[in-house]
Amino acid sequence: MGVVVPLDERPVPDEAGIGPLIELVAPGMERVNAFILSRTGSDVAMIPEVANHLISSGGKRLRPMLTLATAILSGYSGDGDVKLAASVEFMHTATLLHDDVVDGSEMRRGKLAARMLWGNEASVLVGDFLLGQAFKMMVEVGSLEALRILADAAAVIAEGEVMQLAAAKNTATTEDDYLAVVRGKTAALFAAACEVGPVIADRPKAEQAAARSYGMNLGIAFQLVDDALDYGGREAKLGKKVGDDFREGKITLPVVLAYRRGSAEERAFWKRTLEDGRIEDGDLAEAIRLLAKHGAIDATLERARHYGAMARDALALFGDRPAAKALLDVVGFVTARAH
Amino acid sequence: MGVVVPLDERPVPDEAGIGPLIELVAPGMERVNAFILSRTGSDVAMIPEVANHLISSGGKRLRPMLTLATAILSGYSGDGDVKLAASVEFMHTATLLHDDVVDGSEMRRGKLAARMLWGNEASVLVGDFLLGQAFKMMVEVGSLEALRILADAAAVIAEGEVMQLAAAKNTATTEDDYLAVVRGKTAALFAAACEVGPVIADRPKAEQAAARSYGMNLGIAFQLVDDALDYGGREAKLGKKVGDDFREGKITLPVVLAYRRGSAEERAFWKRTLEDGRIEDGDLAEAIRLLAKHGAIDATLERARHYGAMARDALALFGDRPAAKALLDVVGFVTARAH
Repeated sequence: MGVVVPLDERPVPDEAGIGPLIELVAPGMERVNAFILSRTGSDVAMIPEVANHLISSGGKRLRPMLTLATAILSGYSGDGDVKLAASVEFMHTATLLHDDVVDGSEMRRGKLAARMLWGNEASVLVGDFLLGQAFKMMVEVGSLEALRILADAAAVIAEGEVMQLAAAKNTATTEDDYLAVVRGKTAALFAAACEVGPVIADRPKAEQAAARSYGMNLGIAFQLVDDALDYGGREAKLGKKVGDDFREGKITLPVVLAYRRGSAEERAFWKRTLEDGRIEDGDLAEAIRLLAKHGAIDATLERARHYGAMARDALALFGDRPAAKALLDVVGFVTARAH
Repeated sequence: MGVVVPLDERPVPDEAGIGPLIELVAPGMERVNAFILSRTGSDVAMIPEVANHLISSGGKRLRPMLTLATAILSGYSGDGDVKLAASVEFMHTATLLHDDVVDGSEMRRGKLAARMLWGNEASVLVGDFLLGQAFKMMVEVGSLEALRILADAAAVIAEGEVMQLAAAKNTATTEDDYLAVVRGKTAALFAAACEVGPVIADRPKAEQAAARSYGMNLGIAFQLVDDALDYGGREAKLGKKVGDDFREGKITLPVVLAYRRGSAEERAFWKRTLEDGRIEDGDLAEAIRLLAKHGAIDATLERARHYGAMARDALALFGDRPAAKALLDVVGFVTARAH
């Protein structure tokens, strides 16, 4: 799991982190994991090979855990939550397979990306297969409302990715533009994963909306912390490989802020490296220096804590049930995490 | 539409072709087309651009017409058929966008493929968006059974494409292997498109199964004729550009048959060109000569007629309603068509 680097001097309020969530959903996650394994099966051998390469590569499975937790929070009894949780993870996996093709990424979770081993073709098609399997599982649950929410998320995720593609390498991207990308590419699935819990438990609309709001804001916080970590987080000395976003010309919030706060000369630097893609030795170090100079990483993490606070407040409706407490702790985990 | 070249000396029994189908579904198709246009909309400008490039490129829209026709055949009254028909066309369009990336195709329907204009990245992501929109539309119809059928088709289509990827360049592919690919990559969507008509009309299982069988066998016939046409059909003198499958190393039924019927020397030719991808000037002409020598194109078209006959027989259950007659004529169109 790596080391958790405190991102702020103030004591982290939720040092319990992700532990209570893991404990809360452990029995369900065993079934989710078995289900995931069974639904990557195919007579076409390449499908389980490619799918399991990524699925078994040690992702945290945060999204399906959120679905199980919001179902528990809603007093759900049934097995629809397990199938929806597996669907959510399949949608996420399909997105990663396609993203790696779109970004030309070589690594994923510390292993070679599937596309490096089986090619872009297999990554595109196995992603499509997982998306099809995800929809099959959702249909089995039989909730049209949950289907609507997840189908909507699928379209919005793709829309966010296209938006990012169009915004990529464009240093004129504003913070609002970028937040729209984040809502699409990351937060929409967190929101849907959390909303379907109360939906299948037939809870009132207010609780469905609260769970959705929790997920949406948690997802935004998650992505902003990710963006900060890609430049090494606040201290740029984690063991993690930094600079992937920089090398891929991705305009993320730290860059948006540093660009806007920077001098004409500094803007020319960001244009040369990110827009024109002319990156020379030492440019990543210079980028990190500029981000630090303008407090762009701190500001990004401050923004993440803002969305984290919104996620916490959305949960207030659920009182102090143990599931609500575990979900609160996740906010602390997300805003204080390092991979 | 090109010229229809008779593929057989016997008089074509259904010279009415696709005309009666077009007439039958004309009012519904107007609504389907309007619906398709409205659902490619997005604030992200690249999405309608890429989607409409392909959608407005003059495909026949045979699949959505089949959905409308089987709904009419089933006495359906409602507007679910229009949304399902649009979903089917979106699924098909998403598949084409992804296929062109997987095959590295430069042209599609006589125009530059979307990937040549907007890149592989946009083609993958806009395909994902269309798939998401397709599921959203299906959910709006509210039939869990139709959802199950179409979600199943989505997974099977991707499975068929992966199977083709694994079988590509493998001259050991058998006719049965290849039929499994065809069922997946082409016939599954035809089958689903036809099955959902009686399903949303709540017709008996026997009629649902008959419509599915019609679509499945029609889809197989459609693909086999396509495979024959890719080598110029029976006479290799159509205006159409031939040899795409050959250049891409695709093992289709004509090649499977010629390989099996050929000499050791001829097999070496197929291995060199398709497995090793070493294609020299004159090789396409030699391939067409070998296909003709072994009657592989005629045999492929004969097989297509076999599946066409099965499609016709599946329709017998529906008597002589006008919609049944129009669907019968489609079989003649498919087995005697040239693009």
